[in-house]
Amino acid sequence: MLDRFLNVLIGKPLANEQHASEKYNVLFGLAVMASDAISSVAYAAEEILFVLIGVIGLESYKWLGWVSLMIIGLLFILTISYIQIIKAYPQGGGAYIVAKENIGVKAGLIAAASLLIDYILTVAVSASAGMEAIVSAYPSLGRHEVFLVVLLIIVLTILNLRGVSESSKIFSVPTYLFIISMLFMVVYGLIRYSLYGAPAPMLSEHLKATGDLSVFLILKAFSSGCSALTGLEAVSNSVPNFKEPSQKNAIWVMILLSTLIFFIFGGTSILARFYQAYPTSAGTPTVISQIAFGVFGRTFMFYVVQITTAIILLMACNTAFTGFPMLMYVVGKDRFVPRQFTVRGKRLSFSTGIISLSFVAGILVIAFDAVTSKLIPLYSVGVFLSFTLAQTGMVIHWKKCKEPGWQKRAVINGIGAVVSLITAVITVSVKFTEGAWIVAIVIPVLVLIMIAIEKHYSKVAERLSIADEELINTKMDEKFGHIMVVPIQSLNKASINALKYARSITPDVIALSIYTNKSEQEKLQSKWDHLDTDILLVSEYSPYRAVVTPLLKYVDTIAKSTAKNDKITILLSQFIVDEWWGNILHNHTSFLLRETILHNENIVVSTCPYHFHEKSYEKK
Amino acid sequence: MLDRFLNVLIGKPLANEQHASEKYNVLFGLAVMASDAISSVAYAAEEILFVLIGVIGLESYKWLGWVSLMIIGLLFILTISYIQIIKAYPQGGGAYIVAKENIGVKAGLIAAASLLIDYILTVAVSASAGMEAIVSAYPSLGRHEVFLVVLLIIVLTILNLRGVSESSKIFSVPTYLFIISMLFMVVYGLIRYSLYGAPAPMLSEHLKATGDLSVFLILKAFSSGCSALTGLEAVSNSVPNFKEPSQKNAIWVMILLSTLIFFIFGGTSILARFYQAYPTSAGTPTVISQIAFGVFGRTFMFYVVQITTAIILLMACNTAFTGFPMLMYVVGKDRFVPRQFTVRGKRLSFSTGIISLSFVAGILVIAFDAVTSKLIPLYSVGVFLSFTLAQTGMVIHWKKCKEPGWQKRAVINGIGAVVSLITAVITVSVKFTEGAWIVAIVIPVLVLIMIAIEKHYSKVAERLSIADEELINTKMDEKFGHIMVVPIQSLNKASINALKYARSITPDVIALSIYTNKSEQEKLQSKWDHLDTDILLVSEYSPYRAVVTPLLKYVDTIAKSTAKNDKITILLSQFIVDEWWGNILHNHTSFLLRETILHNENIVVSTCPYHFHEKSYEKK
Repeated sequence: MLDRFLNVLIGKPLANEQHASEKYNVLFGLAVMASDAISSVAYAAEEILFVLIGVIGLESYKWLGWVSLMIIGLLFILTISYIQIIKAYPQGGGAYIVAKENIGVKAGLIAAASLLIDYILTVAVSASAGMEAIVSAYPSLGRHEVFLVVLLIIVLTILNLRGVSESSKIFSVPTYLFIISMLFMVVYGLIRYSLYGAPAPMLSEHLKATGDLSVFLILKAFSSGCSALTGLEAVSNSVPNFKEPSQKNAIWVMILLSTLIFFIFGGTSILARFYQAYPTSAGTPTVISQIAFGVFGRTFMFYVVQITTAIILLMACNTAFTGFPMLMYVVGKDRFVPRQFTVRGKRLSFSTGIISLSFVAGILVIAFDAVTSKLIPLYSVGVFLSFTLAQTGMVIHWKKCKEPGWQKRAVINGIGAVVSLITAVITVSVKFTEGAWIVAIVIPVLVLIMIAIEKHYSKVAERLSIADEELINTKMDEKFGHIMVVPIQSLNKASINALKYARSITPDVIALSIYTNKSEQEKLQSKWDHLDTDILLVSEYSPYRAVVTPLLKYVDTIAKSTAKNDKITILLSQFIVDEWWGNILHNHTSFLLRETILHNENIVVSTCPYHFHEKSYEKK
Repeated sequence: MLDRFLNVLIGKPLANEQHASEKYNVLFGLAVMASDAISSVAYAAEEILFVLIGVIGLESYKWLGWVSLMIIGLLFILTISYIQIIKAYPQGGGAYIVAKENIGVKAGLIAAASLLIDYILTVAVSASAGMEAIVSAYPSLGRHEVFLVVLLIIVLTILNLRGVSESSKIFSVPTYLFIISMLFMVVYGLIRYSLYGAPAPMLSEHLKATGDLSVFLILKAFSSGCSALTGLEAVSNSVPNFKEPSQKNAIWVMILLSTLIFFIFGGTSILARFYQAYPTSAGTPTVISQIAFGVFGRTFMFYVVQITTAIILLMACNTAFTGFPMLMYVVGKDRFVPRQFTVRGKRLSFSTGIISLSFVAGILVIAFDAVTSKLIPLYSVGVFLSFTLAQTGMVIHWKKCKEPGWQKRAVINGIGAVVSLITAVITVSVKFTEGAWIVAIVIPVLVLIMIAIEKHYSKVAERLSIADEELINTKMDEKFGHIMVVPIQSLNKASINALKYARSITPDVIALSIYTNKSEQEKLQSKWDHLDTDILLVSEYSPYRAVVTPLLKYVDTIAKSTAKNDKITILLSQFIVDEWWGNILHNHTSFLLRETILHNENIVVSTCPYHFHEKSYEKK
């Protein structure tokens, strides 16, 4: 029943052979890679203003320009650095791989932990920001925002479990719609402003400065705005997914992407200043929606901007649903995360990764009330930490390979590394109390857990493995005597069935009754006397109502009294009912017994099922 | 590790023989039985005023008197009716037993469902009201009220899992403290008022009437006030727990209890009028605390009243922790609830019942923000429904036994039944939209579930049972051939171990490898070739990455090709790691396989554990 439900929800299973992936050309690749990076401009200017406006009032609009310029400078440096990574890693150089190969395993794990956290935050932030865009257009939805964001994440989870990422060509349509509508807004807004000026800046009188301008404040605004640069690494991770010449195509996408960020982010920053868009603490109406309103009024284009913004943010969200499970798979191949993350689900997607991602992101959304500006402080630390590690790894890479012109390349990546590190340090220090401390704790904890997991897997593999020579000498046909212990509570069809099975394997069968109630034991004994058998019925009183302890104690006793080589097997009888809810009412003892014995003793535990509907395998 | 933690938390296991219970004398019995019934006066007057004051303003205080008189009349009738039950059921006559024996199983189940719901509500209401008493004295705690109430319930759960109810003699101290301090407040308050009058009734000007007096309003106030009578049935349930002459002692307790309710409830109603105590929608300060403030000022006695009120409410809460699991046990003996409820835990308490109770009550508290007046509408319906059924059962009882004077007794219980029924109907109708509808749905649903459970257990018992004649004719030593299928993923110490075990039982062993990855399969095959054995290695490709389906399909194939009588067993190898968290990383496949096969096929599933630490049973 559950199976059928899942088939409807996430689709019929796909065979291994159906795994195929399309290669991107430049335009399609840009659409796929762009959503994460470009979508962040939907909130970057807002986040900068949010930091400034409460303190320095109207002055903020001037400083918005300077901060935006700093971020654009950073964008320029990072773009050049990442083009270098594309050149050096044609097989795709995620921060994890670059850092691991060049710096060391721990650096790789730090990069991986940072990226994993950022994927989770991308889902939480993008889904929340997307919903804020919708709420800005339809304010009546505001009351249910958290619920709607969680619902959105659930829908995305289902789509991704179906494997939506494989068929993502249609996704390029909304990306281009967003790009075009944003560029149009920037151009039209600038022209309109130069012709008519802005509508009366209503807010100016409210905007009293309450504090002083400080370096700290500007750095804080800068670090908030740096969220515009998240997702920049996506292209370098997926070079092999591009059509040949893949590196050249990837570089083109990288350049186009940076150019678009430059125009859209720069443009909206200028417009925010002209139209004096004002970030609210509730998150809606968003700055972008205020700009759109200022530029277009409440016309058709206003709604186009809102809706394409919402869609691009959803798609950014979706990139995390591809990136997170893929990174978990890569890290899992090195055994740093549980094996389940490396197994493809029914629809060939990495279901464990997808579900874990949406679960954690959902909790974050609920904990932070789906308000973007509360989530942002957690965000940039990881991004820039992974940028730093990737760039540092590249410096070492160039030093090692020493191909012609390596010094120049090393310097470029070196600058990228230093700038990223500075940004990361700024973010941690200015936002420490606002939530960055969480990330500062979670990253090292994650790294330690990953190391422990790898150690564990290695230890197990080593202890289990048998060398070939040892295999050759293994004697497979040792002879054992067998003793079967069958715990029974009463004499019924299920227990008779189990006793018969035991008897067919060995003559040494012991029926063991563990009782807490004298009268029940007497009832069993009198029923037993009707049975024509020489199987021994042993009754053991359990004063503490436990079953496992007396059972294991009894097994100890017989183990001592039998030949060294004899194998003791515990055979449990278990009846299986048809009703799915029947299991709530039965079989708890069998289940518990089985798991406890297996985990405590080196004894084989067999379970002999007794089905009411004789659904035997011959008839199927 | 978990075991040790539980031992610290709830104490060392107790043996069956340690089960003992003290018998109550009148004074001790009154203390035990009184807390539930007497504690409800702490909120009854408040609930009446809460209904009236928003509508008819100052007029409320006059009507408070009339409504209280109606409730006291009801108290009188119910007391006499319950004394009759005590006389007729010296073995303890809970509503479930009385209704089941005299009216029928369904009536019994309705009474049981009502009582179960009321026990849950007693916990939620008493814990919330107790915390309101504390918050009235220390308002700064108000912010954390829901959290504190839930914490309280958790503490009570732990205490009851330890088996606190057995040693409850010390509990009579706070009960008497509460009784004395309330009686003192009533007497002192009345004297003070007659000498000095009340302090200026500050509220009078705020209390504007906003609506008209109506029969509906008065009935609503009456039904709210009836919460003062909950817990009245406790004495009749536990007649056998009294010292000899047990019936006489129980009747004495019943009379004393009613007298106390009469004085305390009546007295506080009068004082509430004199001091114009005013119920707030947040629940605090409570009416009782306002009276105490009016009578004593912010003196030592004010705090005594608040604290003893809080304690008595906690103790009322605690009675539900005894009553609910006990009722579940009684109903479970008749197989209407899952068997787990009839099993005593480590400390001889019915742990399943205790944990279920606190879980559901905790959810209610969270859902209703721990505000007493929101929970009260759910409350009285069940109480009076069970009263009605118990009294009706008694009428039938008298009619059947026809002992001298039965007509008089039948009339008394008949009046009790009619009055209870009227109260229940009033409560459902006037409070339907405020939450009584929930109870009106939950009771029938619970009854249906209980009937379905009983049917299920009966069916299973019937199908499993074997008659004695059949037992005599059972041939225990049928001969079967055995085929063992050992699924393996790779050749390691654990799988070799399993194969050896299989081989020692039957020569017909098949190693089955289900693979999704060609290269892994080849690796396994080349390792296998080193092995000196004639065991067959069968490799099956699984295109959909599932393990169970191809395994069962293969079993089908061999089942068809072997002799009819041969038994097929699936033997799983499972390695067990030492770390407790290791299980998160391993063994999911084994676990899933085992459960799925057992639930689908009539095949024995054996599990051969491989422990890294050779913790074999001989060495223990």
